This record gives sequence, C-alpha cells and structure tokens, in this order.
Amino acid sequence: MASLVFNRLRFPLLLLFLQIVFIVLFAMSVDYDESARPVVESKDGHNDTKPAAEPIHQPLPEYYPMFQDVHVMIFIGFGFLMTFLKRYGFSAVGLNLLLAAVAIQWATLVGGFFHGHGGTVHISITSMLTADFASAAVLITYGALLGKTSPTQLVIVTIIEIILFSFNEYIGVTMFQAVDIGGSMFVHAFGAYFGLSMSRVLYREDVARSKKEGSVYHSDIFSMIGTVFLWMFWPSFNSALAPGDDQHRAVLNTYFALAACCVVTFAISSLVDKHGKFDMVHIQNATLAGGVAVGTSADMMIGPFGALIIGSLAAILSVIGYKYISPWMNAKLKIHDTCGVHNLHGMPAIMAGIAGAGGAFLASTEQYGYSLYEQFPARVPTVNSTGLAEIMSHVNVEPGLGRSAMGQAGYQLVALAVTLAIAIVGGVLTGFILKYIPGLGRPMGDNLFEDSATWEIPEEDIPAAMLELETSFRRANVLQESGRPLLHKHEKDGASMP
Amino acid sequence: MASLVFNRLRFPLLLLFLQIVFIVLFAMSVDYDESARPVVESKDGHNDTKPAAEPIHQPLPEYYPMFQDVHVMIFIGFGFLMTFLKRYGFSAVGLNLLLAAVAIQWATLVGGFFHGHGGTVHISITSMLTADFASAAVLITYGALLGKTSPTQLVIVTIIEIILFSFNEYIGVTMFQAVDIGGSMFVHAFGAYFGLSMSRVLYREDVARSKKEGSVYHSDIFSMIGTVFLWMFWPSFNSALAPGDDQHRAVLNTYFALAACCVVTFAISSLVDKHGKFDMVHIQNATLAGGVAVGTSADMMIGPFGALIIGSLAAILSVIGYKYISPWMNAKLKIHDTCGVHNLHGMPAIMAGIAGAGGAFLASTEQYGYSLYEQFPARVPTVNSTGLAEIMSHVNVEPGLGRSAMGQAGYQLVALAVTLAIAIVGGVLTGFILKYIPGLGRPMGDNLFEDSATWEIPEEDIPAAMLELETSFRRANVLQESGRPLLHKHEKDGASMP
Amino acid sequence: MASLVFNRLRFPLLLLFLQIVFIVLFAMSVDYDESARPVVESKDGHNDTKPAAEPIHQPLPEYYPMFQDVHVMIFIGFGFLMTFLKRYGFSAVGLNLLLAAVAIQWATLVGGFFHGHGGTVHISITSMLTADFASAAVLITYGALLGKTSPTQLVIVTIIEIILFSFNEYIGVTMFQAVDIGGSMFVHAFGAYFGLSMSRVLYREDVARSKKEGSVYHSDIFSMIGTVFLWMFWPSFNSALAPGDDQHRAVLNTYFALAACCVVTFAISSLVDKHGKFDMVHIQNATLAGGVAVGTSADMMIGPFGALIIGSLAAILSVIGYKYISPWMNAKLKIHDTCGVHNLHGMPAIMAGIAGAGGAFLASTEQYGYSLYEQFPARVPTVNSTGLAEIMSHVNVEPGLGRSAMGQAGYQLVALAVTLAIAIVGGVLTGFILKYIPGLGRPMGDNLFEDSATWEIPEEDIPAAMLELETSFRRANVLQESGRPLLHKHEKDGASMP
Repeated sequence: MASLVFNRLRFPLLLLFLQIVFIVLFAMSVDYDESARPVVESKDGHNDTKPAAEPIHQPLPEYYPMFQDVHVMIFIGFGFLMTFLKRYGFSAVGLNLLLAAVAIQWATLVGGFFHGHGGTVHISITSMLTADFASAAVLITYGALLGKTSPTQLVIVTIIEIILFSFNEYIGVTMFQAVDIGGSMFVHAFGAYFGLSMSRVLYREDVARSKKEGSVYHSDIFSMIGTVFLWMFWPSFNSALAPGDDQHRAVLNTYFALAACCVVTFAISSLVDKHGKFDMVHIQNATLAGGVAVGTSADMMIGPFGALIIGSLAAILSVIGYKYISPWMNAKLKIHDTCGVHNLHGMPAIMAGIAGAGGAFLASTEQYGYSLYEQFPARVPTVNSTGLAEIMSHVNVEPGLGRSAMGQAGYQLVALAVTLAIAIVGGVLTGFILKYIPGLGRPMGDNLFEDSATWEIPEEDIPAAMLELETSFRRANVLQESGRPLLHKHEKDGASMP
Repeated sequence: MASLVFNRLRFPLLLLFLQIVFIVLFAMSVDYDESARPVVESKDGHNDTKPAAEPIHQPLPEYYPMFQDVHVMIFIGFGFLMTFLKRYGFSAVGLNLLLAAVAIQWATLVGGFFHGHGGTVHISITSMLTADFASAAVLITYGALLGKTSPTQLVIVTIIEIILFSFNEYIGVTMFQAVDIGGSMFVHAFGAYFGLSMSRVLYREDVARSKKEGSVYHSDIFSMIGTVFLWMFWPSFNSALAPGDDQHRAVLNTYFALAACCVVTFAISSLVDKHGKFDMVHIQNATLAGGVAVGTSADMMIGPFGALIIGSLAAILSVIGYKYISPWMNAKLKIHDTCGVHNLHGMPAIMAGIAGAGGAFLASTEQYGYSLYEQFPARVPTVNSTGLAEIMSHVNVEPGLGRSAMGQAGYQLVALAVTLAIAIVGGVLTGFILKYIPGLGRPMGDNLFEDSATWEIPEEDIPAAMLELETSFRRANVLQESGRPLLHKHEKDGASMP
Repeated sequence: MASLVFNRLRFPLLLLFLQIVFIVLFAMSVDYDESARPVVESKDGHNDTKPAAEPIHQPLPEYYPMFQDVHVMIFIGFGFLMTFLKRYGFSAVGLNLLLAAVAIQWATLVGGFFHGHGGTVHISITSMLTADFASAAVLITYGALLGKTSPTQLVIVTIIEIILFSFNEYIGVTMFQAVDIGGSMFVHAFGAYFGLSMSRVLYREDVARSKKEGSVYHSDIFSMIGTVFLWMFWPSFNSALAPGDDQHRAVLNTYFALAACCVVTFAISSLVDKHGKFDMVHIQNATLAGGVAVGTSADMMIGPFGALIIGSLAAILSVIGYKYISPWMNAKLKIHDTCGVHNLHGMPAIMAGIAGAGGAFLASTEQYGYSLYEQFPARVPTVNSTGLAEIMSHVNVEPGLGRSAMGQAGYQLVALAVTLAIAIVGGVLTGFILKYIPGLGRPMGDNLFEDSATWEIPEEDIPAAMLELETSFRRANVLQESGRPLLHKHEKDGASMP
C-alpha cells in the first residue's frame, strides 16, 4: 500500500523537488547578463559601464532569430520526429517538452558553473542557446530509449546527463581547445553514445517481441513535421554562435550538405529496398545526417563541394546504418535503438569529428587570414612569441598555445575520443543506476511503446461506419447471445498504470 | 423560402459587406508609415525628412522576425491548439484564420483611430504587431465559444470585440499609463473574460449532453503543434515591442517562466489524476500559462528566479483550474468554456496583472537607472519639476505625471480592474446581441462541435480491412436480408445545413 | 529480366549520377561569395578588399530570417499543402523535399551561370534565396502532376524546368528589365503553366476514374499546416530581396492582400456551395492567391487599399477557378490539375503581372523620389542624358535605358507574355519527353494517387475495436467456414511495385 502511494507520488514529487531546487539555485546564483540589464550610473555620477552620451539600451543580440530556429528544432523538430510510433505520440512530443524544460534550467546552472563568472551565472541569448544545445543531447539520448523508459527514469537521466555533458564540453572546449561549432561531437556524439550504452544495460528480451514498435500512416506524417523543421533550420543550429563570415559560411555549408544528403538518402533507400521503394524511416532520419556530419567543420573553408561530399557520404552511412547495422546491433550486441540515433547522430557525428580534424589540419592563414586565430584560438602564438603582437593588432584574441595545424587536428581527434569515452562510461553507469534503483517504474509488455501507460488517452475513435456495422449484425441476430454492446463499452481509463 | 435564401446568403454577404467597408475605410484613411515610404524631396529642392546625403532607404525594423514569431502564434498556435476536438478541426484552424484576417484589418482601423495621427492611420511592422495582438484577444474569446457558435456569430463578435478591446487598451495605456508589455491584461484577460461572460449568456443545456466534445488520439497530437509553437515563440510575444535590454530581459524572463511552468504542469497533472497519469488537456494548455502570467512584468527586473516562481505558480493555478474550477463553473455558474480559456488565459492574466503591479512597486532608479522613466513614463516628473531636465538629458521621454512607485502599482491594478469590467460587461451585452438577433444561425444538437455543420466534409475514410470484413460477412450470408451495401453508401454531403 | 533490373535501379542510379555531377560542377565552379569569406591580406601587406582597421568579419546579411521564412514555405508550406490526398502524404511531403533538394543545387549552378561572375558561381544568402525561389517553380509544377508521375519523371522535370526557368528569368529581368519582386511572373506563372501544359500532354482517361483522388478528414488538416505557413510567411517571400522601405512596403502590402483574400475566399466559397458551406479545398488554396496576385507590385506604392483590392479580386478569381474552371479544363481541355495550381498560382500570377504593369505605369518621382530609379533601373536616363548625374548623386544606379513609365509598363507585359510562352512550349516539350522516353515508370490504375507504389507503407492500422468485432463474430460461429484470420494477414509489403 505504501508502495502504491509511492508509485503514485514518485514522479510529481521528484519534479516538484527539482523545480524548487532550481528556484533556490537561481535565486542564489543566476542573474541577467550585463547586456540584458539597464545601464545604471554609479553614485559618484559616473556610469559604471559606458559614457552617459551612449544610448541607454543595448540591442538584443542579432542572432535571436537563429536562437528561435534552434528552439524550433529542439521542441518541434525532436518532438515530432519521435511521433512516428503508432501509440507513443503523446509521450514523444509531450515528454520531449518536459525533458527539454528540465534540461534548459539545469544546463543553465551547470553550464554556468563550468563557465564560471565568479560564482554568478549570467543569462542571455547566448546562455539560452547553449542550454538549448545541451537539451539536444538529452533528447538524442531519449531517442534511443523511446518507449522503453518511464518518465521518472527519463528525468533522472536528464539530471545526470547534463552534468556529464557540461563536464565533457568543458574538457573539449576549454582544456583541449577543440572547435565544434555545430556541436556534432559534444552534442550529437555525446547524446547518441550515452543513450546507446544505457540502452545496452537496460536491454530486455520483451522489447523485441512488442508489436507496438511500428508506425501507422498518419504517425509517419506527423514525424515528417519534425524532420522538415530540423532539415530547414539546421543551418541556424550549425552557425548561431559563429561570428560574421564564419556564420555565413556555416549556413552555406550546412544548407548544401543537407541538400546533397537528401538526394543520396532517397537513392540509397531505394537501392537497398527489395522492391526499390523508399523507406519512410530513412527519409525521416538519414536526410538529416548531413547536418550532423558537417557540424564540426561547417564554419571552416571546406568549400561548397566539400560540403556536398560530406552530406552525400553521411547519407550513405546513415541509410546503411538503418538497414543493416541497427538490426545487427539489436540482435548481436543487444543494443536496441528505437529512433536509430546511432545512424542519425552517432556515426555521422564521428564522421563530423574526423572531417573537423581534417579541416583544422588544412587551415592556414592563406585561406583564413588573421581570422584563423579567432577560429582556432590555440593556434595563437604563446606569450612573448614573435608575431603575437601583429596578430593581436588584427584580431581580438588572447595569447594562445602556438599550436600547429597538425596539433590542432590532433586535439580535435582527442576531443572526439574523450567524448565517446565519457559518453559510453557515463551511459553505462547511468544505465546501472536506472536498473538497480528500485521503484523508478518501467514499462513492460503491453506498456512498451504505449502512451496509455502514462497518459489518460481519449476513448478510441470508433468510426460511425463500424458502429453501424455492429448494429446491423446485431439486428441480424448474429450477436444475440451477448447482451452487451461490443463497441461502446470502452472507458476512458481502460489501461491502468502498472 | 425567403428565410432559407437569407440563411444561405447571410454569411457571405456579411463578409463581402465587411470587406468592402474595409477597402473604403482604408482608401479614406490608411497610409504607409513614414518608415515604409520612399524619401521624397520637396519642390524647393530640400528633403522633407532628412538630408540628401543620408541613405534613401530606411531599414526594415529589426523586430520583423519577432513579428513573424507572433504571427505564427496567432495562426498556427491558436489555430492548431483548438484542433483537439475530434470533429472540429476544420473550424478550429479554418475559422481561426478567418477571424484573425477580419480582426487584423479591423484592428488596424480601430486601433489607428484611437492612436490618432490627425485622421490618418499609419501602417508599419508596429501596427501589424498591434493588430496581431488585438486578433489574439478575439481568438481567446473564440476558444471559450468553440463548437457552439456559427461563423456569422463569430464574425459579429470579432467586430464588436475589437472596438471594446481598443477602447479598453486606450484607457489602460493612454489614460492610466499602465504598462503591459506582453498584453496579459489587455489581451489575455480581456479576451478570456469577454468570451466567458458571452458563454454564460449563451448557455444551453444541450451542450453538456453532446458526445462530440472530446478528442481522439491524432486530434490531440495536432493540438500539440499549436501548443509547442505558442510555447516556443512566447518570448517574442512578450518582448516584441520593448526596446533593447528590456527586450532581452523580456525574452529571458518568458523563456524561464515557461520552462518552470512546463515542469510544474507535468507534476500537478500527475498529482491530481486518479491513476497518476498525465492529462493531455493540461499539457496542451497549462504549460503555456507561465507565458501569460509573466506577460505584464516580463521586461521588469523581476530576476530570473522571480520568473521561475511566476511560471511555477501559473502552472499550479492552471491545472487546478482545468481539473476543478472549470467543471464547477460549468455545473454551477453555467459557464461552459470549451478550451478552458479561464485556466490558460483568464486566471494567469489576473496573476500577471498583480505581478506587474508588484514589479512596478519595486521599481527604482537604483535597479533601472534612467531607463526607469522610459519603462514607466508616468513616473517622469511633471513639467517644471526639479530633476526633469536631468532625466530628459538622459532618456528620450516627455514630462510625465511624477507618479511614485506606489502610484504606478495602483494604476496597474486599476487598469486590471477596468479591463475585467469592460470585458465582462461587453461580453454580456455581446452575448445578448447574439442571442436575441434572430437568424444568425447557431449549431444545436448533432451540429455542436461538428465541422459538417459548416464544412463540406470528405467521405468518411473506411479502412480497407473493414470493407473486407463486411464483404466476408455478406459472403457468409449473414447480411442477406439487406440488399444494399452498408459501408459504401456515404455521400459527400451527408450532413445538410440546419 | 534486364528490364526488371533496370526498373529497379533506374531511379537510384539517376539520383546518384546527378549528385556526382553536382559535386563535380561545384568543385569546378562554385565558391563562397566575398561576403562569406575571411578577409585575407595580399602578399605585399595590403588587404585585398578593405583596410586592415576594419573588422575582420562581415556580418551575415540581415535578411537571413526572411530566407528562413521562405525556406519554411518551400519545404513545410508546399510539402504539407500537398498532403491533402488520402493516400499520397508520404509522396507529397517526401518527394517535395527531394525535388527541392535537387532543385536548389541545380538552380545554384544554372542560375549562377546566367548571372555570370567570370565563370565562378558565388554562393551567399542571396543565392540561397534565388535557389529556393527556383525550386518553388518546380514544386508548383509538381502540384499539377501530383499523384500521376513517377519519382524518375519528376526528377527529369526538375532538371529541365530549372534550365528553362533560369533562361526565362534572365530574359525577363536582365534583357527586358522587368521587375517582379515576389516572383509572381517568373516563379508562379512559369511553374503553373509549365506544369499544366505538361499535364495536358500526359493526360490519360484512367486518372479521372481513380477513387483515390480525394482527401480524408485528417489529411485535410495536415494540408492546413502547409496553407497557414505559406499564408503567414508570404510577406517574407514577396519582400526578401527588396531594400529598406521597399521591403517594408512589400511586407505590408502582402500582409493586407492576404487578409482581404482570406475574408473573400470564405465568402465566395460559401456563396458557390449548394449548402452554403465552406469547401476545404478553397480555404487551403484560394486564401493564398492574394500573395501571388500582389507579388509583382508588392514593393510599389499601390496603397494599402490597393493591396486589399488585389487580394479580394484574387480570392474571387481563385475560388471560381476551383469551382468552375478546373472541372471544365479537365473535361474539355483534358488538363488535369491535381492541386489546382491554375487557380492558386496561374491565374493570380497573370493578375499580378497586370497589376505590376499598372503599378509601373503609375510610378513617378513624385511618389518614389529618387528611389524610383532603383526600383525600375531601366528608367534611369541613358549615358550622357541630362539629369543622369543628379540621379546618380542620389542613388547608387548605373546609366539605364531612359524608359518612360509607359515603356516600363509595356515591358512588364512583354515579360509576362514571354514567360507564358516559354512555360507552355517548354511544358509541352517536356511532356513529350516524359511520354515517349520508355521506362521512366508511371503510376497507373490503383497506383495513381497512391503512396504504396513508391513507398514501403506501414501495416494498416486496424483499430482494436475492429479486431474485437471480428473475434466476436468468429466466436459466434459466423465465420467458421474460413479458417484464416481476416484482419491479421496484412504484410508490410502488400503492394508490390508495378
């Protein structure tokens, strides 16, 4: 009985507890960034920050529209992409919203801690963007677990993953000074392998036997809403945080990588099908792999044709992944991957990391001019080096590590390797936590891939024609032996919670 | 017979009449704003407006992308949010489009009249934004009436409501100098209580007995398209018309209020459910209440944790509203509220007004610097006051009323009270107009919550498997007594207009 | 047998071949535009392009958010608008994505060739916008052919159409110096009449007999997603490439034209229906005709009331087209137009061309000031004319052709006529290519308007209630004579490729 009450209250109390913690931590340590505050003069009549003659308002950062594009990718893109399952659409778009709402608050705190401003976390459009990026990692992980985990489990995953995500990003960006403008390594690879290793630990035979892991015609069309919004706005994802022409280039490279990826996905999807037809799963997912694969090198001078090649190869890799690798991983490695995040995010992100290392290796001042040092800050000469002064007179950079192109490429690969290691180890450990902490709830049997396990579901819609058919048969006395109506008995709460 | 012809022509003739009136009034009194006109030199060779050396083009206002976000909220957001009913999706998204298209033209005229530029209405991105805001009030009202009113009635409501809306906004903004950056009082509270009081007057018993006031699985997912777009773009709604850092802050506060609101909505929805499950109605609606509740104070220095608290409280209020207050209002007060606008817009908007008064009470130059006077223009000292000159040397403001913080807070509450009064009285009167003017049409019985009353509906989709089932039973001679096919007889115009 | 293999490989090999060609041509001739490249100093220490003191980054063009709006129109707008057919949603949104992905790569190359920069094509946000515009023409053509052509045929159409589109645009814009800011002539009229004439050549009787050319309830709601996004973002489509106040005006005129168009569409749709109800086809399509009809004159000084009139007339024309002209064209002219592109794009675009000529005829320096010469470059006086120096001191234009207002209006009409001629002749020839080249595949009979001809379709969703009904009848021994289950036999690949 106590257990029943606990089951019943476990989830709301967890959420309320978290929200109260967030409020307390925000009250203690979060404040508006300087750019989002009024200009206030100090007591001695002098302005703290700028001369009185300047405008009293600072403008909203001009990449706010790009933030909104990313925001759409997180909530509509990921949310609807996952609605493809026939009976899991409420959870797909609903829990996607919940997990992202938890993640953006928590990532603001944790990410702010790692980026440290003397104990205070400063919020601005930039922090919103990085919080949205962090939530993307969580939602990719959710894609691997879709339909097989309880809301309680997923919230716990979110809390743990954001910490490890921020830690890994700190190592990669701050310590290794690796660059990854579209987050392919730090977001996509991390989220995918974290989820896949968790999925391995949580593997159960009954998942394979579920008849609900499939789509219906209209659920596949809902899913395409997600696909198309992700596809369209990916240029903003890969460029939002880059400056000027880097940003312009990141938009162009992503746009063309995705165009090529889309074309090749249709080709390979047809090629590997026994009837030469397209598989909706490939179109929903593999068309996007080009956006992941070009993510690390998007702002580099990879050339428009380079973007097309990266997009094309990503499509091949991704479709082959869906067709051959995922079934094999499920059967042999016992890694069940509901959305195929390995094919959309995992492998293309590894490709992105390698392409990024290649781009870093080829980067020179001949192509980049002085902006090279801004793009790869570790390549700025060390303090007291010859040439430092000249560089610093052209671009606004700090003294760096004097890395060579080869050195930068090496650190890019190290950052990729460390990301994979932290994701896999973290995912395994988190999987054990979910597995061995009792009472977190977990869908089984008929509750796998089934909304009614966690949602009040509307009464099934019985077409008028069917009711008429039943009535006719009744009238024909075929069903006289049973007094009760067959089709009108459904109650709203038919499926009760396990 | 004449009555039949009138019924048939009533609606198209009303619309055509209105559109002709709009064209005539636009021809008489609407012109492009200065910012949307070419720079033309006067005859004496001098430029009317700016020196010849300046660029001949003025830039598009930089908040155009925010306008588009708001536009998406109005047409996709409100439109799809209301598609949750199983058989009212065409009307939800279709009439939403129609009413907003009427409202934005009419609001441009009426709003322009109240803001007066010597008889000429100037149109620009700003006027488009305010017209979209006005249409939001109408669509909130539509939410209370959804499924129970004819298109003719709704168009009449739109015409009347826009006038009262503009009048109330004029009183609140111009006379009381109350601030309400996100329109929580002037849009949300107004639209909700206008609709609810109209719904009271139009109350009929047969509405409660309708079996069509419910959702089906996929209609609930359509509705989530609206929810998520509203949720994502609400920061633009609450900030579009604010300057610089105020705008930045409004974005941040709304973003975090909504994140907290979403988390708490899931918690409370589960808490109040007898199986501990989520109710889709709560997720579709209460997750948005935080955007309403923070609307008045969004650009104030409420602090990030303040935004989280406002969002959390709004969620609790809204879910409790859906679970307990709406059924009670329906049963006891005879106020039927199809979309629960009282819970999503009404109560959270009252909360917003109170929070806004609190924010105004706490506002001081210590936190806001000179921008305080821009944010609360009534706080600028009166003409000839000490200190006025100094203030006017820092910010671009007119002499004000010299209000204290307490005074401003008081006027905020007065504006809220007046808004509620005008909305309720206006709604009751409009309800009587709809009720007692004969021949406006009104869905009853089977036509309640039913698209086929006003739309040509495609033939019902009979699954192939069902046709096969019928054929098999026929073959088994069960249905020999009836010669006609059961499932193939549906004609396109099955349901004729009442 | 060889033929079977060819059928099976035809499509993927065509796509892979195209993508390889694109990559090779991009490698040979496409590079980032100057604005998307880092600033690199030349060897002698001097910057090639700008003084060293300037910022090293050039900003992303400020119309990037407008590009994203247009992008949404292309992929969500057109894609979902076409999902209205009951069994063709995968192809609608899926092939829309594919064709646009082919088109934007190919249009970048072909358009770049016509706009010539010494053999190199420069890519930037502007080239992305023009490539998206070109793909719109292809997708309009697709609308006329929807459900009746194979993917192979459609890709061939795309390749041919983009060439003719670019050629026609070159003639109209560069040779005739006609203006068409929203592409109503060069995109909408071209795409529509190209598709309609192709449809005439490919006409077959069996199309008329297909029972699948219709919608179901939810497919019509999916389609409204496309409608509403097109409706909302059309102001960006008609203004993205205009400067400053022209852009502002184009936004305003389009916004109001669409509002009026929406109101009048509802009126006329009800008026022409025998029950006075709305027809969803009209609402999905004719509400948008105002955006097309105002496209050519959107940035001109047509006055806000002029925009309302254009939008209203477009609605009348479009609804009458759907109700009377399309059925007549199908029956008498043997032109079958699945989406009614003649009514949404064709006729309104002709109206746009005429309105544009009218606007050009009325344009004078009194209204436009010196910006007249920027808006109509051919009106700039010729070299050595009096007045040229004065004009060039005010606006950044080249010496022109000294055209009169009447002359400009004439060339506008000539450009329209040439567009129609090239579209119709080109469409007929392309139709013959599709018709007489063997082995391109073509849906017939049951495969018309049917996704399963080209897509692996999920097993039909048999409602639980139906399965229960069958079981009950079985239990009642009605179906004992047949041992096999009726409703569980469907296999995933039920429909095999023809």
